[in-house]
Amino acid sequence: MSIPRSNITVGFLIFPGITQLDMTGPFEVLSRMQNARPLLIGKDRSPVSDRGLILTPTHDFLLTESLDILVVPGGPGVDEAMLDQATVKFVREKAEEARYVLGICTGSLLLAAAGLLIGRRAGGHWQARDLLARFGVDVSNERTTIDGKYFTAGGVTAGIDMALRVIAEIEGEDAAMRVQLQIEYAPEPLFAAGTPYEAPAHIVDSLLSMHRARRQSRETAVEKACESLLDGKTAPSLCDKHAT
Amino acid sequence: MSIPRSNITVGFLIFPGITQLDMTGPFEVLSRMQNARPLLIGKDRSPVSDRGLILTPTHDFLLTESLDILVVPGGPGVDEAMLDQATVKFVREKAEEARYVLGICTGSLLLAAAGLLIGRRAGGHWQARDLLARFGVDVSNERTTIDGKYFTAGGVTAGIDMALRVIAEIEGEDAAMRVQLQIEYAPEPLFAAGTPYEAPAHIVDSLLSMHRARRQSRETAVEKACESLLDGKTAPSLCDKHAT
Repeated sequence: MSIPRSNITVGFLIFPGITQLDMTGPFEVLSRMQNARPLLIGKDRSPVSDRGLILTPTHDFLLTESLDILVVPGGPGVDEAMLDQATVKFVREKAEEARYVLGICTGSLLLAAAGLLIGRRAGGHWQARDLLARFGVDVSNERTTIDGKYFTAGGVTAGIDMALRVIAEIEGEDAAMRVQLQIEYAPEPLFAAGTPYEAPAHIVDSLLSMHRARRQSRETAVEKACESLLDGKTAPSLCDKHAT
Repeated sequence: MSIPRSNITVGFLIFPGITQLDMTGPFEVLSRMQNARPLLIGKDRSPVSDRGLILTPTHDFLLTESLDILVVPGGPGVDEAMLDQATVKFVREKAEEARYVLGICTGSLLLAAAGLLIGRRAGGHWQARDLLARFGVDVSNERTTIDGKYFTAGGVTAGIDMALRVIAEIEGEDAAMRVQLQIEYAPEPLFAAGTPYEAPAHIVDSLLSMHRARRQSRETAVEKACESLLDGKTAPSLCDKHAT
C-alpha cells in the first residue's frame, strides 16, 4: 500500500477513561514517521485525564478529513465509549476510510463494537480479548495481529510493537529500525511476567480477583453494545444469547 | 528504604521540547503503585507539546512539598532546560529531598548539569550519554543503571524498564510483576535494532548524520551548563577544557 510521503495523517482517539500509554506509546513511534501529521481526536475539545495525566484533543468529531491511520487505544473508559453512539459512529466512519486501523489493548473492543472486525482475526488485552468473540471476532492471543488493514495489539505496551510494524509496512524496514533505535527499544523486562502464560499463577490470580468488578461491568457493556450492533442489522448472526 | 504506603508522591518534570514517552512510559508504571500520587510539574502552568501531543502541568515550581520520587525525562528541550537556572535549581532541590530520582533518556544530562551525578555511575540515551562525562559522571552504557538513589535509564523506552525496577524496590517483586502483567509488558521488538551495538551500521550512521546539527548544539549547551556549574563552585574539578 502506498501512502504519499508528503502527508500521513494519524488520528489518535482519546476519551475519558483512556489508558494513556495505549495512545502515547504508538504516538511516540508513529509521529516519528516522515511527514506524519498526528491528531488527537476527542468527542469534543474537553481534556481527558488518566490518573492525573491530562490529554487535550487537538481535534474533535467534527473532523471531516479522512485519516490515513486511525489509532484506537483502550482503557476502562472503553466500556462507556462502546455504548456511545457518536463515538461508535465516528470510529466506524473513520476506520472505513482509513488505510490502516490500529486497535490497542481494549481499543479492539471498540472497533469490534463498531462492527468492524466481524469475521476478522484480532487481539487485545489478555483480560478482555475473549469478549471480542461476542462481536464475531476470531480471537487471537498474539501480541500483534494483522488482518487486512486491521492491526490489533495486546495490552498497553503492545502498541509500541504494533506501531513499529506499521512503519515497516508504510515506510519500510530501514525506517522502522531507525525509529526503534531512536527510542532505544531493546527492552529488558524485569521479570518473565508480561503475559498470563508466563507470569506466576498467584500474580495472574491476584489481578483477576482485583478486577472482578470491572470485568463484570465490562461484560454488561459488551452485551449492550452487542444488542446495539444487532439493532443496526449490521451483524444479524452476532450476539445470539443462546449461542455457545 | 521504606516509604509509607499511604502516599507516594511522584513528580514528573515536563518542559518544552520534552520527549513525551520518556515521561508517559514511567508515568504508566509508577502511577499504578498503591497510593501513588502523580504530579506533572512544569516551570509554570503553561502546557508543553511534543509533536502535537499537549501535556498540561498540574503543578509548577512553586511546589513546596517534597517528592518521594522525582522523574526527569529527556528530549531536545533538555539543552535549554540545562541552561535555565530556575529549572536546574528546582531539579537540584527536589532531587536532594527525594528518596528516588529517575533520569530517563537525556534527562540524566539535566540531573548531571545540576551537579547531582558527580562521581556517580549513570546512563542515558546512546547518542548523548558520553556527554555525561563532562559533568563528572562515570558513564554507563547499560539500559538501566542504579547508583544509590539515582536510577538512570537509556533512551525513551528504557524508562519503562526502569520504572518497574523502582516498583520492585519500593513495593516488592510481586507488585512489580502485577504492573508488568497489567501493561502486558512482554515486548516483541520487530528487529534487533534497539541499541547501536545491535542495529545495522547503516542505520546507526544514518541517525548520527541526521542528528549532527542537534548533537553540535547539545555539545555547546553542555559546555555552557558546565561553566555554569563551575561558577557555582559545586564541582571545581569538572569541565576543565584542557582535561581529556
